[in-house]
Amino acid sequence: MLRIGVDAMGGDFAPVQVILGAAEAVQQLSGLATIVLLGDADKITGICRENGIDPGIFFIYPCTQVVQMHEQPVIAYKQKPDSSIARGFELLAKGELGAFASAGNTGAMLVGSVTTVGTLTGVFRPCISVEIPLLTGGNMLLLDVGFNTDSKADVLFQFAELGTIYAKTIMGIHNPRVALLNIGEEAEKGNMVAREAYQMMADSPDLNFVGNMEANHLYDGARADVLVCDGFVGNICLKQSEALYSVCRQLGLNRSFLKQFNYEEYGGTPVLGVKAPVVIGHGASTPKAITRMIYKAYEVAHSGLVVKIQQQMLH
Amino acid sequence: MLRIGVDAMGGDFAPVQVILGAAEAVQQLSGLATIVLLGDADKITGICRENGIDPGIFFIYPCTQVVQMHEQPVIAYKQKPDSSIARGFELLAKGELGAFASAGNTGAMLVGSVTTVGTLTGVFRPCISVEIPLLTGGNMLLLDVGFNTDSKADVLFQFAELGTIYAKTIMGIHNPRVALLNIGEEAEKGNMVAREAYQMMADSPDLNFVGNMEANHLYDGARADVLVCDGFVGNICLKQSEALYSVCRQLGLNRSFLKQFNYEEYGGTPVLGVKAPVVIGHGASTPKAITRMIYKAYEVAHSGLVVKIQQQMLH
Repeated sequence: MLRIGVDAMGGDFAPVQVILGAAEAVQQLSGLATIVLLGDADKITGICRENGIDPGIFFIYPCTQVVQMHEQPVIAYKQKPDSSIARGFELLAKGELGAFASAGNTGAMLVGSVTTVGTLTGVFRPCISVEIPLLTGGNMLLLDVGFNTDSKADVLFQFAELGTIYAKTIMGIHNPRVALLNIGEEAEKGNMVAREAYQMMADSPDLNFVGNMEANHLYDGARADVLVCDGFVGNICLKQSEALYSVCRQLGLNRSFLKQFNYEEYGGTPVLGVKAPVVIGHGASTPKAITRMIYKAYEVAHSGLVVKIQQQMLH
Repeated sequence: MLRIGVDAMGGDFAPVQVILGAAEAVQQLSGLATIVLLGDADKITGICRENGIDPGIFFIYPCTQVVQMHEQPVIAYKQKPDSSIARGFELLAKGELGAFASAGNTGAMLVGSVTTVGTLTGVFRPCISVEIPLLTGGNMLLLDVGFNTDSKADVLFQFAELGTIYAKTIMGIHNPRVALLNIGEEAEKGNMVAREAYQMMADSPDLNFVGNMEANHLYDGARADVLVCDGFVGNICLKQSEALYSVCRQLGLNRSFLKQFNYEEYGGTPVLGVKAPVVIGHGASTPKAITRMIYKAYEVAHSGLVVKIQQQMLH
């Protein structure tokens, strides 16, 4: 059975909130996956008991160190080999875990993804993606949302390929429409990288490229299933969507559509282009967000996304 | 009295909607400014009569050509010297107009700003800005929102200076807080340009620099009065704010705060860093948007913003 590693020490409200969310995930994934909690074993069992959870529903993998949320990622990852994050990646790379998820230090998660698990052959730069909820129902995949700033055109082109495979495999979209996030619809619009990426995408027979898309169409779903951008732009775009939720909440506006912009709802962003399933949760994850993050890790592992990406990149 | 030139032929709904909006502006600016309508004189007088407007409330400056909305800006501007846009800039450069405003071809407006009016001494790149409404009341200035893609760090630094002068002069903020739009709060976050710009801003004794700001704080007003970014990012940010309005309208949500994101409300974006007041309206401007665009042109001219920017840049 699939073993999903979960960093019990990662997140602003860890380990309590992580354990509560993981316990719920155990229920949801009953018969589909087991949850391996990595972290301080005494703390984990103590918190389980305090909350009426049988620690035996988890496999607990004890670790003596913790990468704190605001530590310098490269240094912390190196200096703390027995941290829950470093051990998680080690077990994932060895195949002892089928997926690894953490709401901890994002930078350290990216370091582990690239250095310990490693990038798939043919992938220039792994990236992270988020499914943006649409007014029409369904979602649009936005990528990269923060892994790669200063992306070159060939990297954006690969995001389009990675996004297409994700949309087919995880979102069940047969022939995903790919758009480039830009400041005008015409081919010659945008910055230098966008103009070059537009041409590469337009020239590709493998992509269902529908052209540039402007951000005023971000939530209407009329244009694209996959929206490609540099990680600097995508991260701003994602956080501005959180602002949308926050504005409406402060105005007392309440609609199920808006609630989807609450980060609790999307739970986690998969790292695309690495050799094993990795999902990064939001730092401020609540139990609900943790449950969703773990479920996303299950989806990514179960769907065979990594193998599908590798096949496409060797194609 | 101040003479404000208005391109009667510019905008998706020109000239009818422009004339209706300009007639309202004549009322609002009675005793403060006269409106010079540039365009097809017969059409203008005909539309005035059809709508019960006395053409005599305007000064009509006849032009025989029109730069269409989707023409290539540089070529169209050059090949149509008797267009309403080209004549507007010519009169502005000669001092026969005190300000010029158009909801027409944005590219042509930028070409005219830079080539006919000219950039102020010491300004690397003019830029365009928008006041973003805040939940706390008041506005935050966002710039650049689309004039300059691929801005270098020294250009971003100048946006901070231009924004500071605008916030003092037009928004009446004594010591405007300046932030850099980024994907994390720490100094080392962001792309290469953002990291370099952060250092330049932090080192400047002339700026009230408060550090990086993430887009989830875009509407809360807690962080900054002026938010600086590259024009590619800023344009996406602005259009995503329009998406916010559009989402809420489609959900049937109705709050005065949200209505401010309707482009009709902000009317126009001043071009900062050129030798005379220029305001660019939204292509899809309604009469209300046109009235606001013209009022913005009045504010920019009346406040002496151009002179204040020039003094600061020579400082």
